[in-house]
Amino acid sequence: MSLFDEVTAVVPAAADPEQAEQVWNVELRDEMSIVNGHPNGGYLLAVLGRAAVAAVGQDDRHVVAATSSYVTPPTVGPATVVTELLRSGRTASQVRARLVQEGTPRVESLLTVAGLDAEPPAWGEVPTVELPTEEVCRASTRSRPPAVPGALEPPLAKVVTMSFDPATFGFASGRPGGAGELRAWLRFVDDRPVDPLALLFAVDALPPATFEVAMTGWVPTLSLTAYVRALPRPGPLRLRFRVGVIAGGKVDETCEVWDSAGRLVAQSTQLAAIRLP
Amino acid sequence: MSLFDEVTAVVPAAADPEQAEQVWNVELRDEMSIVNGHPNGGYLLAVLGRAAVAAVGQDDRHVVAATSSYVTPPTVGPATVVTELLRSGRTASQVRARLVQEGTPRVESLLTVAGLDAEPPAWGEVPTVELPTEEVCRASTRSRPPAVPGALEPPLAKVVTMSFDPATFGFASGRPGGAGELRAWLRFVDDRPVDPLALLFAVDALPPATFEVAMTGWVPTLSLTAYVRALPRPGPLRLRFRVGVIAGGKVDETCEVWDSAGRLVAQSTQLAAIRLP
Repeated sequence: MSLFDEVTAVVPAAADPEQAEQVWNVELRDEMSIVNGHPNGGYLLAVLGRAAVAAVGQDDRHVVAATSSYVTPPTVGPATVVTELLRSGRTASQVRARLVQEGTPRVESLLTVAGLDAEPPAWGEVPTVELPTEEVCRASTRSRPPAVPGALEPPLAKVVTMSFDPATFGFASGRPGGAGELRAWLRFVDDRPVDPLALLFAVDALPPATFEVAMTGWVPTLSLTAYVRALPRPGPLRLRFRVGVIAGGKVDETCEVWDSAGRLVAQSTQLAAIRLP
Repeated sequence: MSLFDEVTAVVPAAADPEQAEQVWNVELRDEMSIVNGHPNGGYLLAVLGRAAVAAVGQDDRHVVAATSSYVTPPTVGPATVVTELLRSGRTASQVRARLVQEGTPRVESLLTVAGLDAEPPAWGEVPTVELPTEEVCRASTRSRPPAVPGALEPPLAKVVTMSFDPATFGFASGRPGGAGELRAWLRFVDDRPVDPLALLFAVDALPPATFEVAMTGWVPTLSLTAYVRALPRPGPLRLRFRVGVIAGGKVDETCEVWDSAGRLVAQSTQLAAIRLP
């Protein structure tokens, strides 16, 4: 079993048939934590996504849209996910899911579960981000141990390898490039194939794109929205993570994810709190 | 009282202090309905936003992020909103809100409530959309009664005036321009000043941007996410609503809203279901 599947596993708890809600036991794992021992936000979205798909109970369906409100940072260790099936539909189902620790809601999310295919778009396209080869990016990333504590170091590095475009890696040396954009390759260390669940993690796997604007403390996400647009082909993912506008102590950031065939397979937007120096 | 404030009014129901949830009575009004008598999605977001701000109980706070899952279309008439304060914070509070009719969840949403200012962005900008004058757009819009039933006709026209850029108004004559983009001015008929609540409505007030790709039936939103970025200056709003990618029977559309000073004040993204001809 791949490490990513292990760390996102959800186990149904004893169900009460009188209740509209279902409870799932999860173990939030240290391998997926970032600074301060808090689990990565995309990881939490993937855990909630796995529970939502299980709550819908159709194996050929995937999370196509998900929004999480980050209420109180969870910690590594046991947690429960409470799912409520809001609507079970032929083409799309909708689920509310809450991650709870010590009786407190930590993450609250809304998820849409539907079918996905690998067909080309019927209209529109987003040109694949241009990146140096994965090898060039990997060598460059390894040559510059990050100055931002925890940003790229283990534990997350046990699960995924992120290889940054050297042109967007200034922050790692404490010198933000100023463009407010990160570009990177991402793959699982154990070469687990990418799938829609992995895309929920990928859209928030990178460090804050604001690190390429200014070195700040952590940039806590208030709300994260992800759309999965197609079944990804096997192989490494290409990511572009961009800052929109920083105003009033908040920032919007968008992430786009392309599969190995250059197809846009996921998109995300988030609003986060930020304190510029 | 402005008509928009009237149609979005929420009245607290008798509260049970033992409950974490609060109940609000609302009347979904015909003036805010679109095709089939269903209330407009941005209108529903504004109603939920008003209840969320009331649940937080701080008059100087506004909804800065909101996502709605559209579960089952509500109908015009009485409804209740159930709010749950997930976290009450110094800088940001988070609320879950559900619109219920006949015991059935119709819209489920997650909202972040925080402070807003009118200061210029600290970093980044989105250039103001270019549009002909509001007068030119209004005259053009009025000269072409829409071929799409209900898209621009009353009842919504009693509340807001939408004046379309003639370059993006082909759909009204049944000839989509092909660019997948709508540009328009928007103002309240009674000249109610715009505020953050109005922006929650504005981000989903226009007809589907996909109408400028192909004439289809209605394009039901699955999930809508809005960010409010600043307190808007008085005056008409400028909107740009764009199609991203249509794939697998789903489409993403983004809306940007600028105030009369040309400042980006709101953004939205949505995933909707679509059947191309």
